Amino acid sequence: MADAPILTTSTTLALAEPLTLDGGQQLEGVRVAYETYGTLNANKSNAIVIFHALTGDHHVASPHPITGKPGWWARMVGPGLPIDTDQFFIICANVLGGCMGSTGPASQAPDGMPFAMRFPVITIRDMVRAQVALLDSLGIDTLHAVIGGSMGGMQALSFAANWPERTRAALVIASAARHSAQNIAFHEVGRQAIMADPKWLDGDYYWQGKGPESGLAVARMAAHITYLSEAGLTEKFGRRLQNRETKTFGFDADFQVESYLRYQGLSFTDRFDANSYLYITRAMDYFDLAEEHGGLLADAFARSTARFCLVSFDTDWLYPTIESRSIAHALNAAGAQVSFMELSAPFGHDSFLLDVPALDRVVAGFLSA
Amino acid sequence: MADAPILTTSTTLALAEPLTLDGGQQLEGVRVAYETYGTLNANKSNAIVIFHALTGDHHVASPHPITGKPGWWARMVGPGLPIDTDQFFIICANVLGGCMGSTGPASQAPDGMPFAMRFPVITIRDMVRAQVALLDSLGIDTLHAVIGGSMGGMQALSFAANWPERTRAALVIASAARHSAQNIAFHEVGRQAIMADPKWLDGDYYWQGKGPESGLAVARMAAHITYLSEAGLTEKFGRRLQNRETKTFGFDADFQVESYLRYQGLSFTDRFDANSYLYITRAMDYFDLAEEHGGLLADAFARSTARFCLVSFDTDWLYPTIESRSIAHALNAAGAQVSFMELSAPFGHDSFLLDVPALDRVVAGFLSA
Repeated sequence: MADAPILTTSTTLALAEPLTLDGGQQLEGVRVAYETYGTLNANKSNAIVIFHALTGDHHVASPHPITGKPGWWARMVGPGLPIDTDQFFIICANVLGGCMGSTGPASQAPDGMPFAMRFPVITIRDMVRAQVALLDSLGIDTLHAVIGGSMGGMQALSFAANWPERTRAALVIASAARHSAQNIAFHEVGRQAIMADPKWLDGDYYWQGKGPESGLAVARMAAHITYLSEAGLTEKFGRRLQNRETKTFGFDADFQVESYLRYQGLSFTDRFDANSYLYITRAMDYFDLAEEHGGLLADAFARSTARFCLVSFDTDWLYPTIESRSIAHALNAAGAQVSFMELSAPFGHDSFLLDVPALDRVVAGFLSA
Repeated sequence: MADAPILTTSTTLALAEPLTLDGGQQLEGVRVAYETYGTLNANKSNAIVIFHALTGDHHVASPHPITGKPGWWARMVGPGLPIDTDQFFIICANVLGGCMGSTGPASQAPDGMPFAMRFPVITIRDMVRAQVALLDSLGIDTLHAVIGGSMGGMQALSFAANWPERTRAALVIASAARHSAQNIAFHEVGRQAIMADPKWLDGDYYWQGKGPESGLAVARMAAHITYLSEAGLTEKFGRRLQNRETKTFGFDADFQVESYLRYQGLSFTDRFDANSYLYITRAMDYFDLAEEHGGLLADAFARSTARFCLVSFDTDWLYPTIESRSIAHALNAAGAQVSFMELSAPFGHDSFLLDVPALDRVVAGFLSA
C-alpha cells in the first residue's frame, strides 16, 4: 500500500575481521552504516542491495539527517513502488570511504586521530567487499538482485563479476565498466580544486573549522554540470536572469544558472567531507572491470549466472549509451542473460534519480521477472 | 613563398578619445596592442582583421613573448598560407580587458594604481569598439574580411552586425551568437575557482606576488576539458598511466590525462592574468547578439551586405553545429549571402586551432572569392 509508512532501520555494523583491500592493506575496525526497508523472508531469498552513487548515502528512502530532504531514491523505493518494500527486503549501505557513518578518511584511525590522507586509497571492489561482509553478517547468501546507478552501477557490476554466486540479478543504470579519460579529467579538476584550497591543509583540516569548503564547492559545481544535459540546462535556465530585469555589469550571479550552481556548490559542503570526495572519485577513476579480469570484459562475467539489465539515457553525456552497450556486448559474449535499453529522458546523467516513468517500469518489470 | 620570413609589426595605439562602453561608462586612456602582417595596399582594400579567442592574444603568427611558442594561428597566417600575408594586410589586436598590452584590469587606472576589479565590466561589442577605433586610426574604412574562431567569432559577428558597412566578408568559426546555459555554467565554475582562491584578494593581488594561481589553474583545467572532444581525449590518453607500470594507490597524477591537465593549468598561469579571465569570460556570457537587436537574430544582420561563412566542427560540444546553423538561418532570413559547413575533425572545439586541412581550404577559398 503506497500510503503505509516506510519501515526503516538504520544500523552500523562493526566488521569483526579486517578488510583486505586491493591496495594490499588490511583495514581494521571497519564500520558499515546501512539502512534496511521491508522484511527479510524466512528463507532469506527476497533481499536486494542498492548501491549508492558518488555523493549519495544509505538514506535511500528516509530523510537525510543533515538536510532533512527525502531520501535520494524515495520515488523508487517504498510500499507499492518499483522497488517494492512490501515484497523485498532492501539493504543500502554507505560506501567505504564515505562520510555518513561508514569508515572513511574522517573516521578515527587506530591512534584515535582521524585517518585524513592516511586512509588507504580504495577501489570500487573494496567498497563492495565491505558490503559483502555486511551480507555475511546478515546471513544472506544470495540476493534477489543488486541495483545501482552511476557509481552504484559500478558496484553492481563489480558484485556480479566478483561474487557471481551471490546474486540472481543485476540492474545497472547510467553506468560504465570503466572510467573514460574525460570522466577522469573532470574528477581531477574537482580534486585539484579541493587540494588547491589552503584550508585543505594536506587533508588535516578536521581540527581547523570546516575545511576546504570553497574548493569542495567548486568541485561540486564542475561535477554538477556534467550530471545535466545541455538541453536540460537550456530548458531549465536558458539565459534567464536571477531576480533582476537587466544585467548588473558586475560579477554577481546575474544568470539563474549561476545562482543555481553556486547554491549546489555551497549546500554540498554542509553534507559532504572533502577528503571523502577525493577518495571516492579516485576509486571511480581506478575502476576498470576488464583490467581486473585480464583485460577482456567478457571474462569478468565468465562465472556469472545472473540476469542482467542495463539502462542508459539518451541525454547522458557523462556515461553515454555506448558505455552500457559495450557492457551488453561483453555479457552477450560471456553467454549471460542480458537486456539493454536506452531510455529517452531530458535530464542527462541525473535521469536515474529523477521522474522518468519508463525507468520505473523497467525496474519493476526486471525485479518481478 | 612559404619560406620567406613573416614581417610583423607590433605596436600599441593609445586611443585619443574615451571609449563609450555598453555598461555606460566612458573609459579613458585605452591602449590597444596589435600586430600587423603583410602590406596595406594603396587603396587600403586588402585589410583583414583577425579576432582572437578567450585566452589568445595579438601574437597570431609571431612567437609568444612569454612562452616563446609560435603564434596561435601560425599555421594559418603567413606567406602562401590560407590567410596569405603576401596578398592581405592582417591586423590582430589584443582585446580590451586582456593582459597582453591592451587596457585591462591589470592596467593603470587614472589614479596610477591597477584597475583590478574597478575595471568596468565589458562586452564583446566593447572589445570590437576598441578595434574599430584602431581601424579608424589606421585610416581603414572597409575590410576585406573579419575572421574569428570561438570568442573571435563572436567579435566577427558583432562587427558585421554593428558596423555592417565596414567589412565585405565575415568568417565565423566554431562560435555562437549567444552563450548557452552550459557555456555560462562552465565559465562560472572557473570564476568561482579564481575568486575562491584566498590569493585573489578581491582582485587586489597585483602587489602580492603572483596572485590566485591555484584558482586560475583550476579554471583553466575545467575549461580545457570543454575544448577537447571525448573521443579525442580517449584517443590521446585513454586510461594510460603516466610514466609508471601500475597505479600508485595515491593522489599523484597516475593517468596521463591528469598529468596533461595539471600542466595545462599551471602553464596557463605564467601567461594570463586572473582578473582578465574574469572579465573576458563575463563578456562572453553576456554576449547575445539577438538581444542587442530587439530579440530577433535576423534583425542583427538587417543592414549587412557582407558575405558570411560559418564553420562548425562535428566533435565540438562547447559550440556545437546547431549554434552555427541557427546563425545561418538568421542570415538567410535577413537575405544575407551565407555559406555554412560542418567539418569533420577529431579535436573538439580546439579544431579551429589545429591541423584540419579542410578548414584551410575553406578559409583560403572564402578569402579569394
